[in-house]
Amino acid sequence: MIPRYSRPEMTAIWSPETRFRIWFEIEAHATTALAEIGVVPKEAAETVWEKGRDAVFDVARIDEIERVTKHDVIAFLTHLAEIVGPEARFVHQGMTSSDVLDTCLNVQLVRAADLLIADIDGLLGALKRRAFEHKLTPTIGRSHGIHAEPVTFGLKLAQAFAEFTRARARLVAAREEVATCAISGAVGTFANIDPRVEEYVAEKMGLTPEPVSTQVIPRDRHAMFFAVLGVVASSIERLAIEVRHLQRTEVLEAEEYFSEGQKGSSAMPHKRNPVLTENLTGLARMVRSYALPAMENVALWHERDISHSSVERMIGPDATITLDFALARLTGVIDKLLVYPEQMQRNLDRLGGLVHSQRVLLALTQAGVSREDAYRLVQRNAMPVWRGEGDFLTLLQADREVTAALKPEAIAECFDLGYHLKHVDTIFRRVFGASE
Amino acid sequence: MIPRYSRPEMTAIWSPETRFRIWFEIEAHATTALAEIGVVPKEAAETVWEKGRDAVFDVARIDEIERVTKHDVIAFLTHLAEIVGPEARFVHQGMTSSDVLDTCLNVQLVRAADLLIADIDGLLGALKRRAFEHKLTPTIGRSHGIHAEPVTFGLKLAQAFAEFTRARARLVAAREEVATCAISGAVGTFANIDPRVEEYVAEKMGLTPEPVSTQVIPRDRHAMFFAVLGVVASSIERLAIEVRHLQRTEVLEAEEYFSEGQKGSSAMPHKRNPVLTENLTGLARMVRSYALPAMENVALWHERDISHSSVERMIGPDATITLDFALARLTGVIDKLLVYPEQMQRNLDRLGGLVHSQRVLLALTQAGVSREDAYRLVQRNAMPVWRGEGDFLTLLQADREVTAALKPEAIAECFDLGYHLKHVDTIFRRVFGASE
Amino acid sequence: MIPRYSRPEMTAIWSPETRFRIWFEIEAHATTALAEIGVVPKEAAETVWEKGRDAVFDVARIDEIERVTKHDVIAFLTHLAEIVGPEARFVHQGMTSSDVLDTCLNVQLVRAADLLIADIDGLLGALKRRAFEHKLTPTIGRSHGIHAEPVTFGLKLAQAFAEFTRARARLVAAREEVATCAISGAVGTFANIDPRVEEYVAEKMGLTPEPVSTQVIPRDRHAMFFAVLGVVASSIERLAIEVRHLQRTEVLEAEEYFSEGQKGSSAMPHKRNPVLTENLTGLARMVRSYALPAMENVALWHERDISHSSVERMIGPDATITLDFALARLTGVIDKLLVYPEQMQRNLDRLGGLVHSQRVLLALTQAGVSREDAYRLVQRNAMPVWRGEGDFLTLLQADREVTAALKPEAIAECFDLGYHLKHVDTIFRRVFGASE
Amino acid sequence: MIPRYSRPEMTAIWSPETRFRIWFEIEAHATTALAEIGVVPKEAAETVWEKGRDAVFDVARIDEIERVTKHDVIAFLTHLAEIVGPEARFVHQGMTSSDVLDTCLNVQLVRAADLLIADIDGLLGALKRRAFEHKLTPTIGRSHGIHAEPVTFGLKLAQAFAEFTRARARLVAAREEVATCAISGAVGTFANIDPRVEEYVAEKMGLTPEPVSTQVIPRDRHAMFFAVLGVVASSIERLAIEVRHLQRTEVLEAEEYFSEGQKGSSAMPHKRNPVLTENLTGLARMVRSYALPAMENVALWHERDISHSSVERMIGPDATITLDFALARLTGVIDKLLVYPEQMQRNLDRLGGLVHSQRVLLALTQAGVSREDAYRLVQRNAMPVWRGEGDFLTLLQADREVTAALKPEAIAECFDLGYHLKHVDTIFRRVFGASE
Repeated sequence: MIPRYSRPEMTAIWSPETRFRIWFEIEAHATTALAEIGVVPKEAAETVWEKGRDAVFDVARIDEIERVTKHDVIAFLTHLAEIVGPEARFVHQGMTSSDVLDTCLNVQLVRAADLLIADIDGLLGALKRRAFEHKLTPTIGRSHGIHAEPVTFGLKLAQAFAEFTRARARLVAAREEVATCAISGAVGTFANIDPRVEEYVAEKMGLTPEPVSTQVIPRDRHAMFFAVLGVVASSIERLAIEVRHLQRTEVLEAEEYFSEGQKGSSAMPHKRNPVLTENLTGLARMVRSYALPAMENVALWHERDISHSSVERMIGPDATITLDFALARLTGVIDKLLVYPEQMQRNLDRLGGLVHSQRVLLALTQAGVSREDAYRLVQRNAMPVWRGEGDFLTLLQADREVTAALKPEAIAECFDLGYHLKHVDTIFRRVFGASE
Repeated sequence: MIPRYSRPEMTAIWSPETRFRIWFEIEAHATTALAEIGVVPKEAAETVWEKGRDAVFDVARIDEIERVTKHDVIAFLTHLAEIVGPEARFVHQGMTSSDVLDTCLNVQLVRAADLLIADIDGLLGALKRRAFEHKLTPTIGRSHGIHAEPVTFGLKLAQAFAEFTRARARLVAAREEVATCAISGAVGTFANIDPRVEEYVAEKMGLTPEPVSTQVIPRDRHAMFFAVLGVVASSIERLAIEVRHLQRTEVLEAEEYFSEGQKGSSAMPHKRNPVLTENLTGLARMVRSYALPAMENVALWHERDISHSSVERMIGPDATITLDFALARLTGVIDKLLVYPEQMQRNLDRLGGLVHSQRVLLALTQAGVSREDAYRLVQRNAMPVWRGEGDFLTLLQADREVTAALKPEAIAECFDLGYHLKHVDTIFRRVFGASE
Repeated sequence: MIPRYSRPEMTAIWSPETRFRIWFEIEAHATTALAEIGVVPKEAAETVWEKGRDAVFDVARIDEIERVTKHDVIAFLTHLAEIVGPEARFVHQGMTSSDVLDTCLNVQLVRAADLLIADIDGLLGALKRRAFEHKLTPTIGRSHGIHAEPVTFGLKLAQAFAEFTRARARLVAAREEVATCAISGAVGTFANIDPRVEEYVAEKMGLTPEPVSTQVIPRDRHAMFFAVLGVVASSIERLAIEVRHLQRTEVLEAEEYFSEGQKGSSAMPHKRNPVLTENLTGLARMVRSYALPAMENVALWHERDISHSSVERMIGPDATITLDFALARLTGVIDKLLVYPEQMQRNLDRLGGLVHSQRVLLALTQAGVSREDAYRLVQRNAMPVWRGEGDFLTLLQADREVTAALKPEAIAECFDLGYHLKHVDTIFRRVFGASE
Repeated sequence: MIPRYSRPEMTAIWSPETRFRIWFEIEAHATTALAEIGVVPKEAAETVWEKGRDAVFDVARIDEIERVTKHDVIAFLTHLAEIVGPEARFVHQGMTSSDVLDTCLNVQLVRAADLLIADIDGLLGALKRRAFEHKLTPTIGRSHGIHAEPVTFGLKLAQAFAEFTRARARLVAAREEVATCAISGAVGTFANIDPRVEEYVAEKMGLTPEPVSTQVIPRDRHAMFFAVLGVVASSIERLAIEVRHLQRTEVLEAEEYFSEGQKGSSAMPHKRNPVLTENLTGLARMVRSYALPAMENVALWHERDISHSSVERMIGPDATITLDFALARLTGVIDKLLVYPEQMQRNLDRLGGLVHSQRVLLALTQAGVSREDAYRLVQRNAMPVWRGEGDFLTLLQADREVTAALKPEAIAECFDLGYHLKHVDTIFRRVFGASE
């Protein structure tokens, strides 16, 4: 966790304070459930809540105990006993550490997912606003980095909106994957604890009971969770790279917002670099990389081993904090993106009309020229334009083999920008819904 | 694609013959749609279907053309023209290669997903059968590779059943992710083709229209698809490693089926090695590794670049063929697994009753001993047993501090296996449903 | 292995024919060594060589036997006995399958490394030739995609030359890593075979004896090998992406060679797309991805398990064939790259002199202006130029605060391209050596 | 960076204090070099050293400035000016931020490599000591988890020693890869700074000049560095998994040291879990995963983009700190490992002599029985033993087809443990050298 790539709300989920608070809630709810089914005295449960509800768990003290016991949950329980008093012996009855640890981790991941979903909602809002703002701002569409045919800048953002709508759905599914609770004992058999305790705690913590746990909650759930984060990060990378391309000196169709005090380069004061989106590209690499150890965590030995734990201590915070930061940063970039429609038009005009070549090709075919011949005719007129030797329309109108099939006016009609934008409405309706 | 790790049905999805057949269907359906909206003559569409429906596309001939044109779809269309005749000029009108390529890839991935889902159904069947067969076969549960408390072998398989039920749901979602069609032209604007063509082709090919494509179908969909395959492979690894552990010489609670002609080792004829599950461990590593390049594929430049293509030519077949093979192999392993209940019992008895230590701990606590003291009492009697110096029950019954809290009979009651199995029904009901 | 991304020489290394030929050589050399130390009759060894030296091993026959025995080496030995006759019983004495398999794999990897090193030599040749050709071709250097200061195109290629010189050294080291031989028996103790056999076979096969093997050659060696391939692939990606950027419509400083028959786009005949380098980008992703399963292969259980085998059957050929193809393709791209110096000059001139801003900054500082003030002065004159509102030199010369420190002529002197190229020689000498 | 998986010396390398100290040294040495070649006044350089040598750089103050400038090096230089006074304007002359940042990163990586190499030396020491201690402690060698033939526990450790000797050599090479310095200006042309400054700073910082940099030091170097860390981590995983296997309840041939206060399980007080090595398994997954983003960092755009930076801010500390911790932890595990030779012997005896089957097979072959027949004879006597129905020697001596070839005494001779250990000396000599 790097402070500069962290935001406080997500970071707080992973603080020791939050963790011990969740542990307390799990233990206290379990004690209540145990009391309800008569295993421990009701007063014990009440005392636990009374003394613990507003207690501040002393992280340093717990660490101190752990240094002796080398066991974090026992250290916590020992400290809890210091707070609660003798009734503490009724806490954790029949439970195993993983009941607390795994349920806690899932509570944290669910809360993290909630923040990430809210982040995406923010990003979707920015994307939608800018997409409608530039719904009909023409710009060149590029494949292979080469000018292809006109699109609009709004379409580019509509694509991103659609992609992050999918990202949102994936995060919702990922949240569901990890929203389970296990209070099932040392090997998941409920030998020493009634399954009703698990049901009770699950409900109180906003989770569902894990159908079958084996001391631990199965890690395929977490692997899926982190894999989704990696895919979402990859979508961030896509949009970040789009902005980086648009900000290139030679393209300059858009720029990241550049604040007054900001310095682009210690050596070259004129430079305005897309540093936010470059940064996002790197952060995406990191979030993606966490998917792999999460998948390797699945194959625990027998009922469990603890190899997953060190991995999760690292990627639990790192992946969610980084993705949260990246989504927020991307939202800011989109929200404040400087867009230059005139430069978009200038680039559009750059290729002397070549962007209309496919339409000419089609017109020729429809006028009865074979596909092969049409291709040849278009290409022989396109090549000089490409080399900067003339204008595509003029050349075509001067090519007798072309004019034998298409009159000059018919050729000119192929050079109409509006032609390319006639279905923008259709696409926007698909992406944003009919009501927009 | 390695023949030894391939099954014919999945392999066939990725053959050139299948690919060209799907290309034909996409092109022919598109021509029909174009005819219906009056862009091309109805007779042209009919001719295409008539001549192409039962045609055999000559892979070698197409390859030959491609060597000149260096463009696979143009090569195919040229060959199609050889089959269909002059009406072929109405094929592919207003379309771009990616319309064909991307829609075809998704058809292939959808078919692959269908096979994988069927594979999982087979595996679930085997797991369920064996789980009920061994529902009450006691075996030791292990955490950290160390004996913990008793479980049943059926519970282990129930866990796997639950895990692969999740894997199935993930595959269904992954299938949905890639079940889209794009016939939207060079940059996705439908400039030269009516969106109704896309809708028509989508329906005919069992897909839904991609809301917004940009020559290509966005690759976050495919990244998600391959990430899911990686997670499923990780679950395969988990079960494979369980079998490998059980087959260890010192454990030997189960074994892969060993056919008569099979030789375990060229040097040591007595050896019966878990080679199938070791093989599955390796295959899982491969399927998992494909998730990464699939995620890197997301960030194509602008409306598209073609960097994803070489990756998909490799991982499309490799990931699906390998996973299909692995699921089938795992199904065979589970189906024919040799299970040794007596050996399970022998291992259970191995620790001189130590597996009941937690129950003793609880009984002591409930009898009023503090958690700390109870822990100390149990541990001091457990350690000699661990060193092979005596039997846990006997030692406890001889420990005065213990008997001060619990009578010898009360201690003996803690040593009851049934106690651990009382909730197996509950868990099975959760996993397999009430009707079972 | 995808035919379109394969070259015959590398592919041949991984054919069954080559594999069985290497197996034969290992077995036959071992038999000779056994004869020399008196374990088997000399005549037996001679017969093996006599009958086997020019034998064609029947792959189909071996596969047939393997279907029964489910063991590849036993299948081969059975077939060898069919060729050699009764003396075959002296073959493989005291050896274990892995002695043959692992030594064979290393022979294959060493041969693959030799081809890759030769590939790099070819690439280095092309890079050097083009680097000297464009040693003084000025072009704009870009950081963050934004114009920075002038460089030369030759410097870009010199950088690549230096990078692939490192790649070469890494491949040489990787070759060394896997150039070992193990003939040490079932668990590596030489219980049934004399270490002298290993030494003899190692020498004959161009390897060194593995100091301590455990049935298998340790897989950290192979992990390192494939990790190096991943790093080399990443360098390919870097150069490929450079070309893709240079070929962008707006930049167009260089282009992949475009053959006559080639068609860029089925829809847009004018397009000349950097498809080779885009393809290399994708191939790099694949080669990189193989490093992970290779690293997961290291932790085999105890003396060995066979989980590495399926991974190596896949990545052995896939990684080396793909990298060989990619290096050759990149060599072709560089060798025939179309370079456009005029367009480079045009782009250089594009920013109205802003590329000289750092030099102005320095001149101001050296004239006694504080760094902070100098930065402010440069930036306030740079910003209008950036917005297209004037020429940097003119603006500076009109800024009284600037001219208070620097005379107009002194400012003009900062705008000299030669200034930036004065150390090109130094750098070339560092990269290509003094003799150039 | 997780405190619980960190050690102070490595952590200190990555502290802001260390970073600013290194920045100062680079800047100050560069100023000295600039003074020597007459670009800045000698007094300026002296003042910089005088004021800065013992200065404490105020991290909070620098952060505060960075919040305005959004540029870390400018923030540092501003703070440096606060310390040094007006002479500070001669600092950083002609340099670019990356000159400082990249050189600093390499200094940090070199220092980290030095610590890691020292860690490995510690580990090698522990391995060697324990290897010689158990040079002749017999234990069963296992392939596929199944008993194979006898080895010694010392051989297992000798293998690890050899593997970490390779790891050491790889780290030395990796250190070399990143031990370079760049002070070459905005695009690496030395336009504004003399190459002699780079040479001077390189020497003072213990580095060599980067032959050709492009504002940045090329990232293939760092990719190689982190790839090596991933391979070393994989070797750690191998040894960790060996210990985990040996500590399994059914095997129990060795155990991690278990301190007095330590509690194995909150529920099961008797348990002694291999938690350190399980933890190492997870940490290895993490270190391995960092290799991927490091490789993705190689393909920066043109002369540089800054996408690598966020990755390196994370993996720089995380990979080195985690690996340092893991190596130290593994050293402790090996150093204090509890080894149980009696239990090793007990396991060795477990298979009723089957471990000698290969030797019987060989003896039969040497007595003239065909390989196929010998295999059949051995297997038919091995199978009952495997099922626990008898002792291998007795059965063989009662098999007439066997005794037709080998006399009972000759069979008995095959059952000699010493036979398997006769080359232990040879292997130790190979691994540890002749002098041992």
